[in-house]
Amino acid sequence: MEPGVESLTALLLSQAVLVPNLVGTFVFALSGGVAGVKGRVDLFGLAVLSFAAGNAGGIMRDMILGRFPAGSFSDWRYLAVSVLAAVVVFFWYPSIDRRRQLVLYFDAAGLSLFAVTGTLAALTAGLSPVMAPVMGMLTGIGGGMLRDVLVNDTPAVFRGELYAIAALAAGLVVVVGDALGWPWLVTFALGAGLCFFLRMMGIHRGWGLPTAPWSPGRGDG
Amino acid sequence: MEPGVESLTALLLSQAVLVPNLVGTFVFALSGGVAGVKGRVDLFGLAVLSFAAGNAGGIMRDMILGRFPAGSFSDWRYLAVSVLAAVVVFFWYPSIDRRRQLVLYFDAAGLSLFAVTGTLAALTAGLSPVMAPVMGMLTGIGGGMLRDVLVNDTPAVFRGELYAIAALAAGLVVVVGDALGWPWLVTFALGAGLCFFLRMMGIHRGWGLPTAPWSPGRGDG
Amino acid sequence: MEPGVESLTALLLSQAVLVPNLVGTFVFALSGGVAGVKGRVDLFGLAVLSFAAGNAGGIMRDMILGRFPAGSFSDWRYLAVSVLAAVVVFFWYPSIDRRRQLVLYFDAAGLSLFAVTGTLAALTAGLSPVMAPVMGMLTGIGGGMLRDVLVNDTPAVFRGELYAIAALAAGLVVVVGDALGWPWLVTFALGAGLCFFLRMMGIHRGWGLPTAPWSPGRGDG
Repeated sequence: MEPGVESLTALLLSQAVLVPNLVGTFVFALSGGVAGVKGRVDLFGLAVLSFAAGNAGGIMRDMILGRFPAGSFSDWRYLAVSVLAAVVVFFWYPSIDRRRQLVLYFDAAGLSLFAVTGTLAALTAGLSPVMAPVMGMLTGIGGGMLRDVLVNDTPAVFRGELYAIAALAAGLVVVVGDALGWPWLVTFALGAGLCFFLRMMGIHRGWGLPTAPWSPGRGDG
Repeated sequence: MEPGVESLTALLLSQAVLVPNLVGTFVFALSGGVAGVKGRVDLFGLAVLSFAAGNAGGIMRDMILGRFPAGSFSDWRYLAVSVLAAVVVFFWYPSIDRRRQLVLYFDAAGLSLFAVTGTLAALTAGLSPVMAPVMGMLTGIGGGMLRDVLVNDTPAVFRGELYAIAALAAGLVVVVGDALGWPWLVTFALGAGLCFFLRMMGIHRGWGLPTAPWSPGRGDG
Repeated sequence: MEPGVESLTALLLSQAVLVPNLVGTFVFALSGGVAGVKGRVDLFGLAVLSFAAGNAGGIMRDMILGRFPAGSFSDWRYLAVSVLAAVVVFFWYPSIDRRRQLVLYFDAAGLSLFAVTGTLAALTAGLSPVMAPVMGMLTGIGGGMLRDVLVNDTPAVFRGELYAIAALAAGLVVVVGDALGWPWLVTFALGAGLCFFLRMMGIHRGWGLPTAPWSPGRGDG
């Protein structure tokens, strides 16, 4: 491959990663804003919570991989979409709340996108094929976990419905695709698609993993 | 400017940053100790909580910017003032509790100092003028957020009264001063002063940002 | 010392650190799994919580020291023992719960091992002898703190019984041994032994530090 093509490919790839990352940030930031409205935070607290939900996963990823400045701090556009999400929630919360199902879909999309791009970033930074999907999963679930901790909820990710494991599955697809030399877009689509599919099955068909039989109140809630 | 003058300036600047940082650490550590007494932790837990409240903001800042060892781990004096604050709270909590107003003022001072020095550190590390104030804000509010999460409270920063936004305003002043080439001390004083002023207005005049109209129980609490 | 011997020593040391770190990870991961069963998370959430409890301390340590990829992300064996712990808890929770005392002993062992290896890593990374034991302590208590925050508990480390301070004591022994040139194994054994002894005294003899006299409900709970 000649240099010109390679750098064009690199450019396209970086753009290909930027757009899903921005979309993922926006939908996660929406979920942060919704949590903020429920927690009665003010407009600015809403923005902080949106930023945390949308960006903490990527920031953790880069802090662990050693890429600085970490995550969203290297590009103002992540801040912009996070603040936009906070403003949208502040003014149109009822419309969003009515479309709860839609928000779940967007969240599933964000999870899928982050899991794939996070795994890719981990592989690029030299993580082993075993650990890279774990990093992709952390990228996908980190923001939501911080969001829930900040408003004093048990992280939603611990509540079944194939959430974290869907993200991990996406990461595994990326690792396999990378090892077998699949075209990047195919790998991307398959990984994100599998994660999204598993989330949909979790939401609509109740697919999930078992809780330990000795958990208190199991079966009631 | 000749080299001798420049390194003297650098020395003065680093000292100029060290003292406010130590003062800020101490007052935030006091707030950590107070939270610890309320949460019934033992003397050593008090020290851990004081250290967390006083230093987590700076540690997060450096972990994101890529400066190692991060934050207070590079200088024992931060540990010293944190432990001092814990001891002060352990023995004289009632005196501190009676001076609640005074603690709020000190906290406002700490926030102002951290927001300014955090933004400066971010600019020095190459962050864009858009993201540097966000980093200053995080430096200012990070310790208090961790403190509240550790004792299972919703972070105070989410409860109105112009807190995080005051820190952001300080950071914006620093960015403007840096761009226009203001003398550093002027920038420092204006930024920290604006943040402190906004906090005072929040505390005494009830200045604040609106909560979303759809927040539950809005207007009651 | 000739090069061959030195690199052999380095190899032995790295192995000497790997095994206690893996054992420490496993026992902390067990505690994460137990917290997960109580918090009614599903099987995969259990694995996430086990991984967090077992590895967050080391990941924080490396993120602060600037060693990348941080902590367990550089070696798949930490993931393996964490998942193993989750599986063990999932299937045999009652047996583990009946052996609560035994779990406390294992936890004490994990704390001792992490405190020593964390302090050593901090010294190697150039931290001062004052701050290195603090880093060792953080390595030891970080995972448990994150575990408790994730399931919405006040961190157990704040509840007396010589926990964090036992870890700090181990770190101080390591610093003294390093300064006086003690053989590494002696330093290791003395540091870890002291921490373990203090924990045992905390558990069995009620050794502990005082709570501030002004803490609410002091003496009742």
